[in-house]
Amino acid sequence: MIKSFVVAASWAVILVAGASAAEADDDTALLKDAQAAFQPLPKDFATAACSVTPERVELGRKLFFDPRVSVDGTVSCSRCHLAGLQGTDGLTKSHGAHDKVLPRNAPTVFNTAAQFKQHWRGDFANVEAQAKEALIGPGFGNPSFAAAMAKLTAIPGYPEQFEAAFPNQATPVNEGNYATAVGAYERTLVSRSPFDDYLTGKLDAISPAERRGLRVFLDTGCADCHRGVGIGGASFEKFGVVEDYAAHTGSKPVDKGRVDVTKQPDDMYVFKVPPLRNVALSAPYFHDGSVASLTAAIRIMAKVQLGDDLTDQQTNDIAAFLRCLSGSVPKDFAEAPMLPPAAFYASPTGS
Amino acid sequence: MIKSFVVAASWAVILVAGASAAEADDDTALLKDAQAAFQPLPKDFATAACSVTPERVELGRKLFFDPRVSVDGTVSCSRCHLAGLQGTDGLTKSHGAHDKVLPRNAPTVFNTAAQFKQHWRGDFANVEAQAKEALIGPGFGNPSFAAAMAKLTAIPGYPEQFEAAFPNQATPVNEGNYATAVGAYERTLVSRSPFDDYLTGKLDAISPAERRGLRVFLDTGCADCHRGVGIGGASFEKFGVVEDYAAHTGSKPVDKGRVDVTKQPDDMYVFKVPPLRNVALSAPYFHDGSVASLTAAIRIMAKVQLGDDLTDQQTNDIAAFLRCLSGSVPKDFAEAPMLPPAAFYASPTGS
Repeated sequence: MIKSFVVAASWAVILVAGASAAEADDDTALLKDAQAAFQPLPKDFATAACSVTPERVELGRKLFFDPRVSVDGTVSCSRCHLAGLQGTDGLTKSHGAHDKVLPRNAPTVFNTAAQFKQHWRGDFANVEAQAKEALIGPGFGNPSFAAAMAKLTAIPGYPEQFEAAFPNQATPVNEGNYATAVGAYERTLVSRSPFDDYLTGKLDAISPAERRGLRVFLDTGCADCHRGVGIGGASFEKFGVVEDYAAHTGSKPVDKGRVDVTKQPDDMYVFKVPPLRNVALSAPYFHDGSVASLTAAIRIMAKVQLGDDLTDQQTNDIAAFLRCLSGSVPKDFAEAPMLPPAAFYASPTGS
Repeated sequence: MIKSFVVAASWAVILVAGASAAEADDDTALLKDAQAAFQPLPKDFATAACSVTPERVELGRKLFFDPRVSVDGTVSCSRCHLAGLQGTDGLTKSHGAHDKVLPRNAPTVFNTAAQFKQHWRGDFANVEAQAKEALIGPGFGNPSFAAAMAKLTAIPGYPEQFEAAFPNQATPVNEGNYATAVGAYERTLVSRSPFDDYLTGKLDAISPAERRGLRVFLDTGCADCHRGVGIGGASFEKFGVVEDYAAHTGSKPVDKGRVDVTKQPDDMYVFKVPPLRNVALSAPYFHDGSVASLTAAIRIMAKVQLGDDLTDQQTNDIAAFLRCLSGSVPKDFAEAPMLPPAAFYASPTGS
């Protein structure tokens, strides 16, 4: 009796040890697969061409939050990218100057500079190009760059800060420098998540449920497109490879995507693959905000891109994984910068 | 020769000492006059009826920054009261939901709860009444309180936070509690200035130029109306006692003020005396933002209220004094609170 108990106990130890060894193998393989598909965030998104000097970041941060540069004084970058809503605005589609409803959903500005292009259709090469063109687009609504720059020039303090950030230029307040400064700031908006710790080798940085979801995400084929440092944001793909997307999202009107930019028939329904960092905190989903639920968005993607009908278990596993991509709000984003006060107040001569 | 030098030197000492004694008398008298007209800020604006419990302040802070309660999802209290612009929006008149231009200029929310009434015409008894009615006014644009509360109820997290702030109520998410919570938060928005230190007896907390301006402010009669803890915000007065205001401000249309609220002929052109705290950082000026320059506003006020033509020196002295009323931005205002994320994302069943 005692002997058989010992034998049984030994078997149990062996079984547990065997299971642990297999689990450890699985964990190691999973990390290896993840590291092949994804990369952790860098400390910032500076490049050789786009440096993040302190003067430019400080100026860009102010400009990001200042609505006075828009045609009606109501729109800043922060109008669509609120700190409290994880760098989004929570709207289906954003509203610009004069309350114009913009054509697509505002993605989070966190980690956005990690992408190969900006905007859903990849209209802009980088954050600088986006920031510049926004000045005269429907968001800010200015009739010209000159009109926008005249507004900034009239605010005491800005010309001096442009001069400090862009020394030895004849006219430092210009749209190119505006774009460089806002871009420099955006290149500092790194929102690091538990998944970054995991990717650097800390296996327990994400939970067993999240690791299970990661395995499903990889095996289902999601990571074929949603890959790289942004978990997406690195390529264009047709939305609706297997089935028309709008039949599942209920989108009205049906956005044709990149074809409207390139006029190439192959670009019909082609969009930038959106990065999935912070996705669990940035509903509603898709280019037009047509789907409110993360799990519904997961099911639709599997169906129209891969032809898969996910089970509830698979869907919830993937959702669990996506939640571990939720990162912290950058400190210099949560805290609003103090802007140069309204013009005129310091006029010493009284008119 | 040596003796006469000593005598002369002694005289000089006596003269200097005499001047200092007179200056000290002046300084003491000025402080006494100031303390008779003004009071320093309290640590918060809680009252027996309006307490500032931590749960209510925390909830109210989130609600203050959350645009999802408005009819189009674009308007929160912070739409018109930006941290970077000293609790104002820098606009002549604010814009509400659907880009509706509101009838009057948005004053700073800092120290606003110090006032005897809210809004330029005193429409609202206190910050709570203002916050409540704003929900169904042109700012937030909701068709009803029920519609606004339905939006909050649908956001996971808010019902629980209302319950925590207002325990043991059948339906804690209601417009009365919304108003109490936002009001509780606003009652904590104290923006203390160097002038508060001066009023508590620190003579050198403000500069000699600012003290000279204080003397002019008192002697000219400004403090007859702009008095108390808010340096105004304690009474109604006719705008244009001596001359029509609009001839000087260029206002179009000419706002009739409180008469439109009370229907009493005596209230023609009557407005709440605005508090002057942070005035130097909150251009443009007057109920309609019709004047951009602080010094121009000072001249106009002296002319139309008192019949005085101020000299440049008097104008600049008063402006110097007003600048020492500029206070710090409350920490819990500069830093945006994290809001409950968009609805639905956590739905476990996938639709």
